[in-house]
Amino acid sequence: MNRVVHPVSSRLLRTQNRPLSCALTTAIVLINYSEQQAIRLNLDTPEECAPYLATESVSWVDVQGLGSENILQRLGQVFKLHPLVLEDVATVPQRPKFEDYNDQQVVICHMVLADDEGDGFYREQVSIVLGSNYVLTIQEESEYDCFDALRDRIRRQKGITRCQGADYLAYCLIKAIIDGFFPVLEDYGERLEELEKEVVRSPSTRTLEKIYELKRELLMLRRSIWPQRDAINMLILEDSALIQEEVRVYLRDCYNHAVQVIDMVETYRELASSMMDVYLSSMSNRMNENIRFLTVFSTIFLPLTFIAGVYGMNFKFMPELEWYWGYPLILLIMLSVAGSLLFYFRRQGWLFKADPAGK
Amino acid sequence: MNRVVHPVSSRLLRTQNRPLSCALTTAIVLINYSEQQAIRLNLDTPEECAPYLATESVSWVDVQGLGSENILQRLGQVFKLHPLVLEDVATVPQRPKFEDYNDQQVVICHMVLADDEGDGFYREQVSIVLGSNYVLTIQEESEYDCFDALRDRIRRQKGITRCQGADYLAYCLIKAIIDGFFPVLEDYGERLEELEKEVVRSPSTRTLEKIYELKRELLMLRRSIWPQRDAINMLILEDSALIQEEVRVYLRDCYNHAVQVIDMVETYRELASSMMDVYLSSMSNRMNENIRFLTVFSTIFLPLTFIAGVYGMNFKFMPELEWYWGYPLILLIMLSVAGSLLFYFRRQGWLFKADPAGK
Amino acid sequence: MNRVVHPVSSRLLRTQNRPLSCALTTAIVLINYSEQQAIRLNLDTPEECAPYLATESVSWVDVQGLGSENILQRLGQVFKLHPLVLEDVATVPQRPKFEDYNDQQVVICHMVLADDEGDGFYREQVSIVLGSNYVLTIQEESEYDCFDALRDRIRRQKGITRCQGADYLAYCLIKAIIDGFFPVLEDYGERLEELEKEVVRSPSTRTLEKIYELKRELLMLRRSIWPQRDAINMLILEDSALIQEEVRVYLRDCYNHAVQVIDMVETYRELASSMMDVYLSSMSNRMNENIRFLTVFSTIFLPLTFIAGVYGMNFKFMPELEWYWGYPLILLIMLSVAGSLLFYFRRQGWLFKADPAGK
Amino acid sequence: MNRVVHPVSSRLLRTQNRPLSCALTTAIVLINYSEQQAIRLNLDTPEECAPYLATESVSWVDVQGLGSENILQRLGQVFKLHPLVLEDVATVPQRPKFEDYNDQQVVICHMVLADDEGDGFYREQVSIVLGSNYVLTIQEESEYDCFDALRDRIRRQKGITRCQGADYLAYCLIKAIIDGFFPVLEDYGERLEELEKEVVRSPSTRTLEKIYELKRELLMLRRSIWPQRDAINMLILEDSALIQEEVRVYLRDCYNHAVQVIDMVETYRELASSMMDVYLSSMSNRMNENIRFLTVFSTIFLPLTFIAGVYGMNFKFMPELEWYWGYPLILLIMLSVAGSLLFYFRRQGWLFKADPAGK
Amino acid sequence: MNRVVHPVSSRLLRTQNRPLSCALTTAIVLINYSEQQAIRLNLDTPEECAPYLATESVSWVDVQGLGSENILQRLGQVFKLHPLVLEDVATVPQRPKFEDYNDQQVVICHMVLADDEGDGFYREQVSIVLGSNYVLTIQEESEYDCFDALRDRIRRQKGITRCQGADYLAYCLIKAIIDGFFPVLEDYGERLEELEKEVVRSPSTRTLEKIYELKRELLMLRRSIWPQRDAINMLILEDSALIQEEVRVYLRDCYNHAVQVIDMVETYRELASSMMDVYLSSMSNRMNENIRFLTVFSTIFLPLTFIAGVYGMNFKFMPELEWYWGYPLILLIMLSVAGSLLFYFRRQGWLFKADPAGK
Repeated sequence: MNRVVHPVSSRLLRTQNRPLSCALTTAIVLINYSEQQAIRLNLDTPEECAPYLATESVSWVDVQGLGSENILQRLGQVFKLHPLVLEDVATVPQRPKFEDYNDQQVVICHMVLADDEGDGFYREQVSIVLGSNYVLTIQEESEYDCFDALRDRIRRQKGITRCQGADYLAYCLIKAIIDGFFPVLEDYGERLEELEKEVVRSPSTRTLEKIYELKRELLMLRRSIWPQRDAINMLILEDSALIQEEVRVYLRDCYNHAVQVIDMVETYRELASSMMDVYLSSMSNRMNENIRFLTVFSTIFLPLTFIAGVYGMNFKFMPELEWYWGYPLILLIMLSVAGSLLFYFRRQGWLFKADPAGK
Repeated sequence: MNRVVHPVSSRLLRTQNRPLSCALTTAIVLINYSEQQAIRLNLDTPEECAPYLATESVSWVDVQGLGSENILQRLGQVFKLHPLVLEDVATVPQRPKFEDYNDQQVVICHMVLADDEGDGFYREQVSIVLGSNYVLTIQEESEYDCFDALRDRIRRQKGITRCQGADYLAYCLIKAIIDGFFPVLEDYGERLEELEKEVVRSPSTRTLEKIYELKRELLMLRRSIWPQRDAINMLILEDSALIQEEVRVYLRDCYNHAVQVIDMVETYRELASSMMDVYLSSMSNRMNENIRFLTVFSTIFLPLTFIAGVYGMNFKFMPELEWYWGYPLILLIMLSVAGSLLFYFRRQGWLFKADPAGK
Repeated sequence: MNRVVHPVSSRLLRTQNRPLSCALTTAIVLINYSEQQAIRLNLDTPEECAPYLATESVSWVDVQGLGSENILQRLGQVFKLHPLVLEDVATVPQRPKFEDYNDQQVVICHMVLADDEGDGFYREQVSIVLGSNYVLTIQEESEYDCFDALRDRIRRQKGITRCQGADYLAYCLIKAIIDGFFPVLEDYGERLEELEKEVVRSPSTRTLEKIYELKRELLMLRRSIWPQRDAINMLILEDSALIQEEVRVYLRDCYNHAVQVIDMVETYRELASSMMDVYLSSMSNRMNENIRFLTVFSTIFLPLTFIAGVYGMNFKFMPELEWYWGYPLILLIMLSVAGSLLFYFRRQGWLFKADPAGK
Repeated sequence: MNRVVHPVSSRLLRTQNRPLSCALTTAIVLINYSEQQAIRLNLDTPEECAPYLATESVSWVDVQGLGSENILQRLGQVFKLHPLVLEDVATVPQRPKFEDYNDQQVVICHMVLADDEGDGFYREQVSIVLGSNYVLTIQEESEYDCFDALRDRIRRQKGITRCQGADYLAYCLIKAIIDGFFPVLEDYGERLEELEKEVVRSPSTRTLEKIYELKRELLMLRRSIWPQRDAINMLILEDSALIQEEVRVYLRDCYNHAVQVIDMVETYRELASSMMDVYLSSMSNRMNENIRFLTVFSTIFLPLTFIAGVYGMNFKFMPELEWYWGYPLILLIMLSVAGSLLFYFRRQGWLFKADPAGK
Repeated sequence: MNRVVHPVSSRLLRTQNRPLSCALTTAIVLINYSEQQAIRLNLDTPEECAPYLATESVSWVDVQGLGSENILQRLGQVFKLHPLVLEDVATVPQRPKFEDYNDQQVVICHMVLADDEGDGFYREQVSIVLGSNYVLTIQEESEYDCFDALRDRIRRQKGITRCQGADYLAYCLIKAIIDGFFPVLEDYGERLEELEKEVVRSPSTRTLEKIYELKRELLMLRRSIWPQRDAINMLILEDSALIQEEVRVYLRDCYNHAVQVIDMVETYRELASSMMDVYLSSMSNRMNENIRFLTVFSTIFLPLTFIAGVYGMNFKFMPELEWYWGYPLILLIMLSVAGSLLFYFRRQGWLFKADPAGK
């Protein structure tokens, strides 16, 4: 089983290349808890999990980083993972999905993290394997996850997590992942608002690029969240003994959150599409303004220059040239031509509308 | 359980920020009625509801304003609300939805109110909890709701509400919420008609912005009404003992109203999209008109100025300059050149079509 | 129960305001027939129907005009109508729909009538209530309906209508309504063809408005026919004793006609959308032609005027000015410049393509 | 029962009006075959079919041309057709559909024929009635059909047709109709390819019209094939005794062919839509090229003409005019101005890019 | 049974015509394996397969090239293929599909191969017939396939293939075909990225053609993969004894891969569509820039030339001409006119914005 990476999809999907700190190290963290106590251990080998899995208490084995193939293989032996699960876990990026292997329920998720500078987001694959009294999570990278609040709740015995089984833990993990989409969407909401202003007030080629980037990134978000919703739905509908009826209610709430994320992504996409139209119209407006300016200016000076040209002709017999008041008269005529043209343009609304339209 | 607010979605969804009068105060109004009598009380604490819930008569507990977390918690204890219900109620804005908790049916709705100045609308979340002989409504804000007509009907014993159970009361509430969309849509219909005129007669950048805003607001309306329809449908289909067959007929009518709202929203959205195309075409028309004007004007004066230029040359031997009729002859030639060009343009339809097309 | 009218939707849906002749008068026409005989009576009060409903023969009570509320209420008592039916009947415009009230099947339809001048259409709401041996139809207005052919067939005993029950009568009514869409669509087909010619040959702002109007009206037609199809489908599927298996076959045919109407509406809508694109391209073409004309004209006269300007300079030492053949030589040079430019433009295809493209 | 023709739909659907040779004559051709023998007869009256229908062997009654109403009525009596079938057969164009009348299965199809000149197609309605041991086909026109290969196969006993029942014959007919779409699509494929070249190399208004026509005709093809697919599917799913399990496998293959036709139609439609965009962009490109030409030309001559104008002024004291080298100096200056502008334009890429972009 | 080729679809679907090396030769390769051993034989006639099909071990008969019709017919006899299967195999290109013939499961697939030069792809039809202990694959061409890795795994006994039945072999084949789409998509991802840069930085008519080609090729990819997904799904759902429950899990994984391919194709298509918009906007931008340049230049020189023209007039009495400082004064005036216009344009942002916008 190789670590298969489809370079192109990966490149298109990850908006910013976060340096893989050390792709080869794998940290294994075990949290074992019951209502009475909670232990947290950093393990060196997957085999060390075995004794904890045998206990009644809930074990959360968190593998951080898809390190060496060897460790994954040994993990597969300890947890009796189906070869396809191992392949899915190691193949990054995988489409989020749910698979039911009778004694194990596998959910593959995408976890997102807003970029600090407010554009783009990081994405990481998390595979969640729910067994009878354990949850195994395998994260693509070791650096970051969105489970700290959950770890804290387990440690300090906040909420009801400690009193519940492994299925509730799986719910908490999925919920943390889904709710992690909201801050990212928040960033996109803000970028949309900024773009809305920019597109009308001062559209430039950069604006166009920004809209396109926004659309592309929303497309990626959408590709992550849609199948995630389906995965949660299948997890709810699958009539597995691993998940209690009580927890199903919580998962339905989780499903609703996923739908809300989808809703927002789709709304943002529609807004971004409309914005492209607005951009095109804005450009058209600007061009209009330029052309109108040119038209007005040319139309005024063309006849004036012509008149000047006429009296620059060298005909011997041009009576006007001899008149004493000829020159001032012609200047006056020029002035009146310019004036009447200006008056015409003003009535046509070409003169003063230009500015508010363009600004 | 915190009051979770997703700032971005909230900002995008609420078209105008209505000042939250006093977000922390919560008014609790209890209306208890049977066919014989109806009481209305302003309660200070949630616990005061308890005795009324124990009676046979129908109780409507209306909590106005998501005040302090503490009150919500105590409300949860009095009504035995599931923790997820409490979370949903407190999280604003929530996607409209229906949840079935066996002895309670929860519907989360969006109530809309047309803005007085005819643009935009306010939106408020209302959570409706239907129990065996009570309805609990929790409103996001205390200032406004669309239930006054219903309260009046209960008080004055108009209609059949007083003779019916809590399920009929829930129907009345949902119906009031759905029918509240129609005046908002009316406003949008009027704005659309105004824009239709504006976009053809006097399109400006402001028109473009207006169309975009309209599209965005309709998108928001749509996000509120679609899931609301689904929620009502699930309420009808859910085979709960809380809702009598008779009331289901009424709910179906309510569902039809929701479909009608959706129908109108979608129609308006399509019209707004077409209008964007019309706008682009209008702009293109105007530009055409400008360019045609410039073309006609330039094309007439360019040859005239050239002729004048020729006879302004200082060659020693230019016989025409010496002719006695040279000057008038040249003027005549110029006139005939201009005349034939005008004739050509007129035949091409460039001369007089400009105005009706542009106006 | 009030007569609820949503002004905005009504305004948008009815393309032309037909003057409501006398909204308050309600004409009640009863047609009672069996295979042997057929009676037609104009009734004054709804109560007069009662004796006929008690007979075995089929009664068609046709209420024309949503007159006074009082008459509707009494009608409701005579026919034992559900309050929601009364509300639906009185609310105009209602979305076409089907409701099953066990002993009554209610279908609310939209009847359309092509405008005589060939643009736009009138729309009227018809509510059809099918009981065990009667059909009650309530029309929005009294002036027009499309049932005359049916009345004639009953009177003259043409076709099989007289031999069949109330369910077949209901089918005949629905069929008449659906088939009434075809002449309206015919008008739209003709308008589309005219627009197709206009948009390529002589596009103007008016063309744009016409396309937009067409799209809007087709949208309205669509909003009428889609739910009507669903209503007929539900009528077929609903396993009611009121409708015999035999008549279901006829209703399926009716359903197919509705689908055909939808098909045509959708096709017309797509054509109208494509036409908008063609319009935009046509405008772009025209602009192109104008600009090309300007370019050719300017490019020819600019160098000529420049040459004339050079020899209009007043330098003391310009040998060419003294030459005897200077003037004709310069004229020749100018001619050759103009000629070579014209040759260049012709080779570029800018010179003669302009006309066919623009015409 | 009248021959109902909806003029508008017919006009829009038939791309070219083929002269109806003699709409009133109806040719009735009977082919009766069993494994041993095959008879082909031209009948004068529908009643002559009766004896053949009574035999065990398969009868194919092919009615060519919707001649007189009288013949259709008599046909209805001989074959015991439901009145709705007769109406459907006589109503042209009917939407393709399937109807199950217990002892008869009716499929209404559209048969298409590519026009010889490679643009547009003819369309003809064929109604297929499958009975226990006969197939009745009623064609709109008598001139052409796509069943010649099938007739030949029956006559010469090629393939397995002669050994099979009426259901297999019906399959063969439907298959011939569906496969008749492929040559038409072939023509469209070729037209698309030609348009692809034209739209980039030499777009003209005619190109635009061609794209629009292509889109319209594909829309018509689509309207014929989509319901045909549904009809075949219903024929397969309908659990009728008239069709043997074995033949269902063949019909499924037929269904797959219909899906392939749809696939191609949809692909062509998408390509045609994209081509409209390409056309718009091409036009925009050409305009750009024109404007750039005008800009370059004007910008070079404007300053030159200005300089010439300056030295054409008649001021008494203009020292340059007196210089001996004044004139050549000014010419040099003009040259250098023109040169530096050309250099600037070249660096901007406005000078030589024009041609490749425009060609 | 003829080899039916629909020329047009074939032409449109195959992006580059790979020379059919020798369409008439058919190579038959048999691989027979069990856990213990694996034989590979090149057969001359289809009949030679027969003895191997009778054994318990798994036989993979790989027919490369749709050679002579005769061989296909004999193959049909050896494997007892349904006539429709033979027709489907020989008809190229066929729409991917699944057919269940009780004792045989037939999947028709499209295999794609990225072109070496990175644009376009080759496509080949592969028909897979799964029997009780054999798999028959029939490839359109003999030159290339994507099964070499699989052959290698069988030969070297890598993985679990050798221990599994014919159903697992069929899975391996389908998986190899689906996974073959990824490298092709990779190429498209790269082309998209290059186009993204080109469309903003240096859009030309060629860019437009490239986008259109990309869209067309993605449309073809889509036409191959969508029905392939459906075929796999039907293979999973079909409750055939030929496929063991265990292998179904693997096929589900395969299905997920197909969905991922679809996902990527759809994303790329959306990006390509957006890019068309960006292209149009870029063109509009460039035109704007040109027009602005022309406007600024003309507007500055028009008044200057006019002033020069005025003082080139030959009036007898023009006092300015006599002034000693007249000439320098006028030059100064001209300079200040030009300067103030430049200042105005700069404030309008027309002067320096041009460059960054256009680059």
